[in-house]
Amino acid sequence: MQLEFLGTGAGSPSKQRNVASVALRLLEERNAIWLFDVGEATQHQILHTTIRPRKIEKIFITHLHGDHIFGLPGLLSSRSFQGGTEPLTIYGPVGIKRFVQAALQVSESRLSYPLHFVELTDDGEIFNDHGFRVIARKLDHKIACFGYRVEEADHPGELQVEKLREQNVPSGPIYGQLKAGKTVTLPDGRILDGHDYIGKPQAGRIVTILGDTRQTKNAIRLAENADVLVHESTFAKDETKMARSYYHSTSKQAAEVAKQAGVKKLLLTHISARYTGKAAYQLAYQVRNIIPDTRVVNDFDVIDIPFKK
Amino acid sequence: MQLEFLGTGAGSPSKQRNVASVALRLLEERNAIWLFDVGEATQHQILHTTIRPRKIEKIFITHLHGDHIFGLPGLLSSRSFQGGTEPLTIYGPVGIKRFVQAALQVSESRLSYPLHFVELTDDGEIFNDHGFRVIARKLDHKIACFGYRVEEADHPGELQVEKLREQNVPSGPIYGQLKAGKTVTLPDGRILDGHDYIGKPQAGRIVTILGDTRQTKNAIRLAENADVLVHESTFAKDETKMARSYYHSTSKQAAEVAKQAGVKKLLLTHISARYTGKAAYQLAYQVRNIIPDTRVVNDFDVIDIPFKK
Repeated sequence: MQLEFLGTGAGSPSKQRNVASVALRLLEERNAIWLFDVGEATQHQILHTTIRPRKIEKIFITHLHGDHIFGLPGLLSSRSFQGGTEPLTIYGPVGIKRFVQAALQVSESRLSYPLHFVELTDDGEIFNDHGFRVIARKLDHKIACFGYRVEEADHPGELQVEKLREQNVPSGPIYGQLKAGKTVTLPDGRILDGHDYIGKPQAGRIVTILGDTRQTKNAIRLAENADVLVHESTFAKDETKMARSYYHSTSKQAAEVAKQAGVKKLLLTHISARYTGKAAYQLAYQVRNIIPDTRVVNDFDVIDIPFKK
Repeated sequence: MQLEFLGTGAGSPSKQRNVASVALRLLEERNAIWLFDVGEATQHQILHTTIRPRKIEKIFITHLHGDHIFGLPGLLSSRSFQGGTEPLTIYGPVGIKRFVQAALQVSESRLSYPLHFVELTDDGEIFNDHGFRVIARKLDHKIACFGYRVEEADHPGELQVEKLREQNVPSGPIYGQLKAGKTVTLPDGRILDGHDYIGKPQAGRIVTILGDTRQTKNAIRLAENADVLVHESTFAKDETKMARSYYHSTSKQAAEVAKQAGVKKLLLTHISARYTGKAAYQLAYQVRNIIPDTRVVNDFDVIDIPFKK
């Protein structure tokens, strides 16, 4: 599981940063990519990665500002052009369906795959297939905006095959029964309890990706105990008034959300063109007293999300 | 007057070519840029040129396929974000207004400048301000598609100031009268006819930019005696059947249009990803027996359009 940032800028594209999009790579987990926001030229950015558009299974849109959605029609068309046939679902605020459908209809684009929409109005669980669960909650932006919390299901412990071999337990259907936690009797009379041969379960990972927002309680709820929080930082530490009047956050507010939610790893994105080069990195340095593991992400950064130890 | 190619590829963006857009640079002539088609990420391409979005005065859309229009909402928004206040007019097939308005409404984008639409249904003159005149005609594509002919007005001959000085004609209001073609009497009694002191008028330039099309008579009409013809070449010389079935042209068909229209300079664009590197240049080599001055354009090529000698 990795996050791959495709666009980390705010508002308009610049030579340094494209507009918003981040991919959650779930290739090992479900052979799929999930995208969060699709700013213009996201498909162009993808050309420089190993992501294949046909692998994109779900797209989550935080809000309908142009720098978060104008890449959708092109990405959807190219996914079709390249022969994608697997269904794709788009989650987002009311209006996302109208935008995409207008673009596809006017351009007479017929997709080679089923396209589904889930338009969000309230907080709550929006997806759950026992492997993953996604929760959306409203944030505090100028227009309707959602944050997303992706929870991976816990992984059951692995069967300790080494230990069974050491004890000369012959492999076969018995292994499956032990893994299921059953008690079995061996041909030689030994009685084994499966629970003694199953390792510790691994807690599923939690990734929280927020849209543009002022500081709000829902951000903390979404981020609670997350392994990683992706938070906008359109403004610097001390620009609280500016952030408030533009419905955005400062780097410090992002760090406070992480702190209150018990998050150890904070990734700052949605970086204004006012902050380039070293000035951008300052956004992170300024708040490392609050969250030591804070960084400003750049386009094409890949951040690994390991299991908790 | 120059053509600057912002995207020269067909269908989907590739690492080598972006999707369709070409700028007609009229900075000396009217301090303006005119765009023809706006594929996704045209605004990104513009970041690598000297074009300023606020200078874009008119946008001509050939047809509504996604690779020709999906960059419009972002470009229009960024032009506003950067403080453009001058009006902008978009010409194109019926539906272009619906697409742009849906995108701007859903994203709650309010533009800082007046935006006008001229939706085309028939052939004819669509603009004329005595400096420039634009004629649109229907082409033969899968959906409604137009080609555009831009005619610059003839430049009146310059007053031959050198000649007047040689003949010791004192400068002053008399020069203006001579330039207007009047006959004037000098203080020393000499009588001068303005027509004797005005150089040859310069013929205005003609630029023809076509959308995607099969070979059609309207293409020839639009290109008649043009200084330069921008023509699609989605297919190679011998792929006539393929071109026909996809409503496109071969390089040979493009050259035949140029030949029949009396055009000396042919620029081939809308190059398929099937043709990369040398294979793309072959598209031009193959037809130089028909039009010697044929070239395949690349992204960021700037082609000067000088006055006729």
